[in-house]
Amino acid sequence: MADLSTCLPLTRDSVLEAHKIVAPHVHRTPVVTNRTLSEMASRPRTEEELRGTRWEGRTPARPKLRLWFKCENMQRIGAFKVRGAFHAVERLMREDGWLEGGGKEKGVVTHSSGMSILSPLSLRNHAQALALAARENGIKAHIVMPEISIPQKIAATKGYGARVVFSGSLSSEREAVAAQVIAETGARLVPPYDHPDIMLGQGTMGLELQEQVKEMMAAEKDHGNSTATGEKKKTGLDAIITPCGGGGMLSGVALSCEGTGIRVFGSEPSFQGADDAKRGYESGERVPTVSTLTVADGLRTPVGEHPFSVIHGRRLVAGMYSVTEDEILAAMRLVLERAKMVVEPSAVVPLAAALFDEDFRAMVEREGGDEGWELGVVLSGGNVGVDAIGRMFGAAN
Amino acid sequence: MADLSTCLPLTRDSVLEAHKIVAPHVHRTPVVTNRTLSEMASRPRTEEELRGTRWEGRTPARPKLRLWFKCENMQRIGAFKVRGAFHAVERLMREDGWLEGGGKEKGVVTHSSGMSILSPLSLRNHAQALALAARENGIKAHIVMPEISIPQKIAATKGYGARVVFSGSLSSEREAVAAQVIAETGARLVPPYDHPDIMLGQGTMGLELQEQVKEMMAAEKDHGNSTATGEKKKTGLDAIITPCGGGGMLSGVALSCEGTGIRVFGSEPSFQGADDAKRGYESGERVPTVSTLTVADGLRTPVGEHPFSVIHGRRLVAGMYSVTEDEILAAMRLVLERAKMVVEPSAVVPLAAALFDEDFRAMVEREGGDEGWELGVVLSGGNVGVDAIGRMFGAAN
Repeated sequence: MADLSTCLPLTRDSVLEAHKIVAPHVHRTPVVTNRTLSEMASRPRTEEELRGTRWEGRTPARPKLRLWFKCENMQRIGAFKVRGAFHAVERLMREDGWLEGGGKEKGVVTHSSGMSILSPLSLRNHAQALALAARENGIKAHIVMPEISIPQKIAATKGYGARVVFSGSLSSEREAVAAQVIAETGARLVPPYDHPDIMLGQGTMGLELQEQVKEMMAAEKDHGNSTATGEKKKTGLDAIITPCGGGGMLSGVALSCEGTGIRVFGSEPSFQGADDAKRGYESGERVPTVSTLTVADGLRTPVGEHPFSVIHGRRLVAGMYSVTEDEILAAMRLVLERAKMVVEPSAVVPLAAALFDEDFRAMVEREGGDEGWELGVVLSGGNVGVDAIGRMFGAAN
Repeated sequence: MADLSTCLPLTRDSVLEAHKIVAPHVHRTPVVTNRTLSEMASRPRTEEELRGTRWEGRTPARPKLRLWFKCENMQRIGAFKVRGAFHAVERLMREDGWLEGGGKEKGVVTHSSGMSILSPLSLRNHAQALALAARENGIKAHIVMPEISIPQKIAATKGYGARVVFSGSLSSEREAVAAQVIAETGARLVPPYDHPDIMLGQGTMGLELQEQVKEMMAAEKDHGNSTATGEKKKTGLDAIITPCGGGGMLSGVALSCEGTGIRVFGSEPSFQGADDAKRGYESGERVPTVSTLTVADGLRTPVGEHPFSVIHGRRLVAGMYSVTEDEILAAMRLVLERAKMVVEPSAVVPLAAALFDEDFRAMVEREGGDEGWELGVVLSGGNVGVDAIGRMFGAAN
């Protein structure tokens, strides 16, 4: 991993640079709209629906929203993580002396620090992304995994050509093994989110989303279509909302929007304190540890220091919102059944906020007014098996 | 429904005409590729995999395939059926004297003839499509349903503004009720597949698929990308494979390819004789009835007379293939888990043929040679709930 002193500055221009580097390696994932979901988001919730929630008795908000989904569930390896991984690896190859010093043979290693044993999905997505980026560049990859990992996960990682190194289950044990791998091989650590290269890489999705919505809105005008908000003279997004786990994606997308006038929001599960970034954002103090079993298993990590410096320190994120487990599952069902896309629970947290969070919705009503908002909604990944879908929804019906 | 004598002839030009009429009302659904699935389709099956199948002991075929999925699961109402329904309704409105005679008030009615009580999905998709097309044109819709229909289905149909008329469960009882509705209201019958207007409407997806693949292949060349088959000078599809239930879609797509050199294939489940079109195609005699409980519940209908005249009579379909229930579920799992799209079992029957049917694969090897084939694969619909997905895959894992 590049030394911090040699990293690009955390600016929109750096995200543009990162996009040039990663674009040949990742999909320009589709952006889709869905009439039903936009209508649902624009329909005031009923008093009945608010009963028993923390908004009971409040007058339901009346936001007008058109949703533009950025489908990173259709990204390579099924999640946005390849953007950061390819960017980090490509930067490494450009680092003075790294190739000459036998860097490809020494390899890269994933970092499990800051990730609890409870966050297998986020780790797995990053590990697979790194293994893929390494393989396509002829670089060795060492992936440190707990011995108790399920066989499919081990096989999937080996399938990407990586060397799997076993450790104990505690994050301290994994860190020790990673340090040992580094000492033995000279491999470079590539952390999952808490590094500028990763943040800038993830931010590239924000650039694409901005461009794609502009293109789609222009095409819509050409075809003479218009909708409630489309009739106005808008040419692009008003805002973007993303999930927030370690914060690499949220901070990167925020950087991609700096100076554009597009507001960026983050969203988290509230279950068992998983809303660490929201609490940190509101108190001004980053919450360094989280222990939660939220169904949104990609978001079980605390927000990292570098991301937090962008999210809160530089105020590039305009607000943080959190949603319940039931709201996450309801949003997931809607995306599966209405938008016909497979998404993991973490991926629908922003949609859940847009549909169910009265604080978010009242803010959109206030800020967006009659014209409403064109809202970019990141669907961050789709790595969930049909058996897990069955377990999540089987009992409910 | 337009009298047959006033229908457009069954030609590619008529599909082009139909496309002009339906394009403003339906989505130009996305076409997507998927590296993993194309690689799987291009990898010879192992002898082990063929053990216990009807190809046991045969040398596995070595086809080269790049798959282009036409995502009608992302169509309005979640299935291709809106194409035929809008076309039929728009044709009706252009019919001499229909509007003047109070046609909108008299309305349209769905036809359940030829559909067994065992085919709720196909009926439901057509009924919803017709209800939607009628509503958007200010036309009354009468939907005849068995009294024992589940409440959600009744609610969904009413949700589209249709009048639900109950009948007994036998298809003869439903036909009698439909006839009574017609006698009482003067409503016009719109059958689900056995009519030229429906066939031409469904065929519009074939035109779009041809165009979209050409656009995507041109863009690929611009970006300097190339793959095993992309390096050759191909500019479009070699073939398309679709599901076949009543045959409206298969015959329409075949018409859309007439004279283009693109070969068209049909695919069916083999379970309990659901491969009626294949048997009819091979014997020369249409099989008029089917009674099957295949998981591909949109394909439980026998192929209709008009579709069969195109599929077999005019030889516009180059071959029919059938797959087992296990193969359908395996293909469905792959689309959900790898392509991250929600599809109903009927929708993946063509993919199952491409992946698992050694007869199909040997034919591709023979015809496509080293260059391989660019194969359009229709994903016809995505109307399956998460609870049903849970039931289908929950036990297996």
